[in-house]
Amino acid sequence: MSTTVWLNGRLLNITDAHIAPNDRGFLLSDGLFETIRVANGQTPHLARHFARLEEGCAILSLPSPDRTLLTQAVSDLLHTTNLSDGSLRLTVTRGTGPRGLVPPAMPHPTVLIQATASIMTVPTPVRLGLSRYRRDGDSPLARVKSLACLLSVMSRMEAVAVGLDDALLLGTTGAIAEASAANVLFLRGGCLQTPPIADGALPGTSRARLLDGGFCMESCLLPQDLKTVTGAWLVNALSLTAVSSIDGHDLPLHAELDRRLRAFLFPA
Amino acid sequence: MSTTVWLNGRLLNITDAHIAPNDRGFLLSDGLFETIRVANGQTPHLARHFARLEEGCAILSLPSPDRTLLTQAVSDLLHTTNLSDGSLRLTVTRGTGPRGLVPPAMPHPTVLIQATASIMTVPTPVRLGLSRYRRDGDSPLARVKSLACLLSVMSRMEAVAVGLDDALLLGTTGAIAEASAANVLFLRGGCLQTPPIADGALPGTSRARLLDGGFCMESCLLPQDLKTVTGAWLVNALSLTAVSSIDGHDLPLHAELDRRLRAFLFPA
Repeated sequence: MSTTVWLNGRLLNITDAHIAPNDRGFLLSDGLFETIRVANGQTPHLARHFARLEEGCAILSLPSPDRTLLTQAVSDLLHTTNLSDGSLRLTVTRGTGPRGLVPPAMPHPTVLIQATASIMTVPTPVRLGLSRYRRDGDSPLARVKSLACLLSVMSRMEAVAVGLDDALLLGTTGAIAEASAANVLFLRGGCLQTPPIADGALPGTSRARLLDGGFCMESCLLPQDLKTVTGAWLVNALSLTAVSSIDGHDLPLHAELDRRLRAFLFPA
Repeated sequence: MSTTVWLNGRLLNITDAHIAPNDRGFLLSDGLFETIRVANGQTPHLARHFARLEEGCAILSLPSPDRTLLTQAVSDLLHTTNLSDGSLRLTVTRGTGPRGLVPPAMPHPTVLIQATASIMTVPTPVRLGLSRYRRDGDSPLARVKSLACLLSVMSRMEAVAVGLDDALLLGTTGAIAEASAANVLFLRGGCLQTPPIADGALPGTSRARLLDGGFCMESCLLPQDLKTVTGAWLVNALSLTAVSSIDGHDLPLHAELDRRLRAFLFPA
């Protein structure tokens, strides 16, 4: 992570950037975040992230940060950190408040942007298990990228603890929802499919681009349908990762399709 | 809230108490908390809170803070703030970490204790609605008091927005689980009942004391069973609150039972 962050209008060294102990993001996970790809010093899909953040703010009844301000903040942080390739994390919380769940009548949101440099290589294929944690696709919160992501932390930790790379979480419907920090794509009957939002999938920005581009369609997938799957990928705003096995069942890799998806999602 | 807090071994003015922007509690709700009653300058049920915190730490694979250290911290904070009646909030996170879900191999937990003075009066009876948010009682996380409590924030906010005081959340089983920040007690067939943990109820400390004391028993309650309910209370570590209506159905108050419960839970 870069040592410079943008916090509430100021570029600061991380050691001078302070979150208050009574920030509702810290105490109550009362906030949202976005993870934004940086390529060649640019943020090609910033508008999609802002749109999702604004939808999330509406669901949380949280004042949405001004797009012009955020765009300038992103530009300033990229300039100062000289970040060419990597990612930004934009965090928005309801700010500080008194004790308890009820927010202040006029919240002053905390807005934090952190930058991380990384080399955009093709990730090694991953092995997935099925998580015992489930996402409630019926919840309005399943549609927002909230700070309440301990469930994702736990499902990833449990996968890693048994020697796997990541986990697929089911929705409360029993169908597959997504991985701990990515949407999932399945190759099935020659078609690329991704679980619908109603099954607990987060409306990911790369997922939306693939759907908009006609690369895949929404389809429910139950755990017992996994035997009909002939390939799979994890996809999020930062990466496309081939899946080499799910729940002990090996999956072939598909070099040509992988290249095509990668060229569309993350052109050089 | 008192202006003095205890943070990682130091008593600080809240303006000098800084949470790092890369604290996993802030970024990922990766942590736990306890709300502890203070009466006459004492914390009569501290051991129950420490036990629940330790169980939560075990589920999260988080190093548990030392009880002796925490006991001293509570004592020092009570002494410094001169707090006689009110509450402490103890927050434990997995501390700072690099970008992403996977925690550092050797986490350094953040431990924060905040004090709030309040006069322990008998709360006014509350009107409840049924929330559209649900708790997954099958999840190991339903058993811990985690920082991922945005669902509780939202259910409370939605209740308040329609002129109610609080909401009852259902579990994913469809049965009633708890209120946004309290367990619920139902009077039904002359017996006091509380939803089981498997239906999504948090194992509250006052709930446990009532069960241990033989004051109530665990029983599932579906929304359609509410018509058989003749009284209700919300109970948490800080208060017992009579319920005057649920989902538009008025409930009688029970002054004598209320007094008996209150005398047991919160003796003067």
